Amino acid sequence: MTRSPAPGTVTLQRSGAIASVTLSHPGRLNAISVAMWQAIVRILGELSSDPAVRCVVFRGADGNFSAGGDITEFPQERQDAGALFRYHQEIIAPALQAIGHCPLPTLAWIEGACVGGGLEIACQCDLRIAGAGARFGAPIRHLGFPMAPDELGGLLAVAGRAVTLELLLEGRVLTSADAYAKGLLTRVVADDSLEAEVTRVATDLAAGSALVARINKETVRRLTPAAAPFSEAELRAFYAAWSDSADHREGVNAFLEKRRPNFTV
Amino acid sequence: MTRSPAPGTVTLQRSGAIASVTLSHPGRLNAISVAMWQAIVRILGELSSDPAVRCVVFRGADGNFSAGGDITEFPQERQDAGALFRYHQEIIAPALQAIGHCPLPTLAWIEGACVGGGLEIACQCDLRIAGAGARFGAPIRHLGFPMAPDELGGLLAVAGRAVTLELLLEGRVLTSADAYAKGLLTRVVADDSLEAEVTRVATDLAAGSALVARINKETVRRLTPAAAPFSEAELRAFYAAWSDSADHREGVNAFLEKRRPNFTV
Amino acid sequence: MTRSPAPGTVTLQRSGAIASVTLSHPGRLNAISVAMWQAIVRILGELSSDPAVRCVVFRGADGNFSAGGDITEFPQERQDAGALFRYHQEIIAPALQAIGHCPLPTLAWIEGACVGGGLEIACQCDLRIAGAGARFGAPIRHLGFPMAPDELGGLLAVAGRAVTLELLLEGRVLTSADAYAKGLLTRVVADDSLEAEVTRVATDLAAGSALVARINKETVRRLTPAAAPFSEAELRAFYAAWSDSADHREGVNAFLEKRRPNFTV
Repeated sequence: MTRSPAPGTVTLQRSGAIASVTLSHPGRLNAISVAMWQAIVRILGELSSDPAVRCVVFRGADGNFSAGGDITEFPQERQDAGALFRYHQEIIAPALQAIGHCPLPTLAWIEGACVGGGLEIACQCDLRIAGAGARFGAPIRHLGFPMAPDELGGLLAVAGRAVTLELLLEGRVLTSADAYAKGLLTRVVADDSLEAEVTRVATDLAAGSALVARINKETVRRLTPAAAPFSEAELRAFYAAWSDSADHREGVNAFLEKRRPNFTV
Repeated sequence: MTRSPAPGTVTLQRSGAIASVTLSHPGRLNAISVAMWQAIVRILGELSSDPAVRCVVFRGADGNFSAGGDITEFPQERQDAGALFRYHQEIIAPALQAIGHCPLPTLAWIEGACVGGGLEIACQCDLRIAGAGARFGAPIRHLGFPMAPDELGGLLAVAGRAVTLELLLEGRVLTSADAYAKGLLTRVVADDSLEAEVTRVATDLAAGSALVARINKETVRRLTPAAAPFSEAELRAFYAAWSDSADHREGVNAFLEKRRPNFTV
Repeated sequence: MTRSPAPGTVTLQRSGAIASVTLSHPGRLNAISVAMWQAIVRILGELSSDPAVRCVVFRGADGNFSAGGDITEFPQERQDAGALFRYHQEIIAPALQAIGHCPLPTLAWIEGACVGGGLEIACQCDLRIAGAGARFGAPIRHLGFPMAPDELGGLLAVAGRAVTLELLLEGRVLTSADAYAKGLLTRVVADDSLEAEVTRVATDLAAGSALVARINKETVRRLTPAAAPFSEAELRAFYAAWSDSADHREGVNAFLEKRRPNFTV
C-alpha cells in the first residue's frame, strides 16, 4: 500500500462574510488525509485573523460530508504506539480543537456520509444541518481500534453518554431522522432544500453581532462541565493498550483486504 | 423613553396546598420589570416558610408566559458595565436562584410566548408543561448582547450544549413540538387541555410527600456535574466585554426604534 | 409480614460468547430480593474472569424485566437509618456498580415492567432495547422515600436532570415511545420482534473486539463529567433525613395495606 497520489484537499472560499471550508477527496468520500487535517488548522488560523469573516461553513464536496480518516494512510502513519500518539494527538486533535475553539459561528452542512472523522468534525461545529439522506456513525470497532480521547470528547459533548456508547459499541450508522431524534443534529431538511437552508442560516449568522456570538460561545464552553483532560501519561497508556494488539492488526488488515474481521480467534 | 407607568406585577394565589405565581404585565406579554424580578424573590421567600404550601406553579396572565425582561427599562437600568452587573447579578440572578433552589416541586404552566427571561424562569422549574401553541427562544442576539452566565447556566442544564448554542446563535424561536423534541419540555398538550393537565399534575404533586420531593431535588442537584461558578472578576470582565460596544448600542437602539439592527457596519 | 418463601433467583446462561443474566421472581414481576442483588454481584464477578464471554444480556423472566426492589422484604431489611444504609449502600449499590463497571458490552432486553430497581439496572447497561409494550418509571414517591444517591446517579447519567426530576417528582410511568423520546432507550421494536433484535445485537457485539469495547467503555466513563461521590457522612445524613419520617412509614404501610398513602395529615 503506497501513499495515495491524490491526498485530497481542503479549500477555503469566501462569499461576503461567509467562509466555506470544503473537504474534497474525489472517489474516496472525502476521506481526510494528514495533509487535510493540517490544512484545516492552517485555514482556521487564517480565518481567525480576518475580521471580514463572520461565519464558517464546513462541508464536503460531491454529495458527501466525509467518510472519516484516510485509511490508506494508516499503514504508514500508525505503525506503533508512538505513531498513533502523533497521528491522533498532533494531527487530528489540533484540527478538531481549531474548529471547536473558532470564535465565529460554525455550521456543518451535511449530506451523504458523515462518518468517523467526518462526524468528529461535525460535532465540533455549533450547528449541524443535514439532508434527510445523510448518515452518521463511527464504526471504527470493525477496524479494531477505539476512539481517541479528544475525538470521543467532542462526540460525547453533543451526543451524550448513551448515544456515544451505542455508536461505538454497535458501530451503528444512523439515518438523519434517527440522528436528530438522538440529539446529534440541529435540524434535518429535505436533501433538495439543504443548500437553501444552509445559505439562509449562514447569511443570518453572518449578519449578527460577531462579538455577541463569540461571547455566547465562550460562556457556553465555560459553563459546560468537563472531565479533566487526559494527561500525557494517560494518553500514552491509551495508545499502548491497543496499538500492538492482534485485534488492531486484524481490523486494519481485514479492511485493506476487503474482508470481514475475525476478532474471536 | 420614560419608565413604564405600569411596571407589571407578580401575584401569589393559593388554592389548598398549591401556590400559583402569576407574571402580569398587560399589553407587554408579561415582560418582567425590575419590580417583578424582586417580587419573585420576595414571594419565594414567603412560600419557603409556609408549611401549608406543597407545590408552586409559575404562569403568565392573559395567554402568555412571558416575553422576557422589560426592554423599556433597559436605557435606565443598563447604562454601563456596573449597571449591567447590578441588573443581571443582583436583580435577575437572585430571582432565578430563588426558583431553582425552591425546596417544593415547581411547575411552569406555559402558553404563548416563553422567551428570554420567561424561558429562563421556565428552565429553573422542575417540570415544564406547555400548550401546543407556545413558543420558546432567547433571541437576544438581535438586541446586541449575550446571555448572562447565571441565566445561561439554567438554560444549559435543561437544554444541553447543542440546543443552547442553537437558541443563542440563531436566535431561533421554537414551536412546542420542536422544543419537546429537543428536550426543553416535560410535556406538550393541546392548548385547551393545558389548564386541566397543569391542575391535575399540581394536585398530584401537592398530595405527595414534601419531604421526599425536597430530598429528591437536593440529590439531583448534588449529583449534577457543574462548572465552577464565575468569580466576581470573571463576571466584571463578562459585562465589560460588551457593555460599551457598538453592537450593544445598535441592538438596543434598533429595538427601541422598531427597526432591524445593522451589526456589519 | 414474613419473608417470602421464594425470594427469587438470578440465573446465568451461556450461549457461545453471550452470557444471559435472568431475573426471576415468579408471581412478583421479578421483584429483586436481597439474595438476587447479591447474586448479581457474584455472577458479574464470575463473568469478568471468563475470557470466553464477550457480551452480557440482562433480562427478566416471563414477560417482565423487573418491577424493582422486593417490597415484602422492606419491613425486615429497612427498619432504621442504619439498615437503610446497609440495604442501599451495601446490597444495591454494589450490584449496580458491578453492572456499570463490567468491562464487556452490556445489553438490557426489556419487556413489560422496567420499574424502580429494574430501571436502575437497565440504566447501568450500555444499551437498552425495549419492546413497544414495556413501561418505565420509579414511582417510589408513593412509598414515601427518595431515591438513594448511587441509584439516582445511574438514572441521571442516562436520563439527564429534567427527565430524572419528572420521573421522581411525578412518579410517572412512561411508555416505551415516551421513554425513547426522552432519551432513556437505545431502541424500541415491536414486542414480537424483541427477541430477534436482542439476539442480533448480542451476536454482533460478541463478534466484536472485546479489547476495543473495553477501552471505549473506559474512555466514555473517564470523559463523562461527574459530581464528587457522596462521602459516608453525606450518605448517613441522607438516610437519617427520612428513615424515621412519618411519610416513610405512611408510604410503606399504605403499600403493604394496599391503600393510597396520605402524606398530607
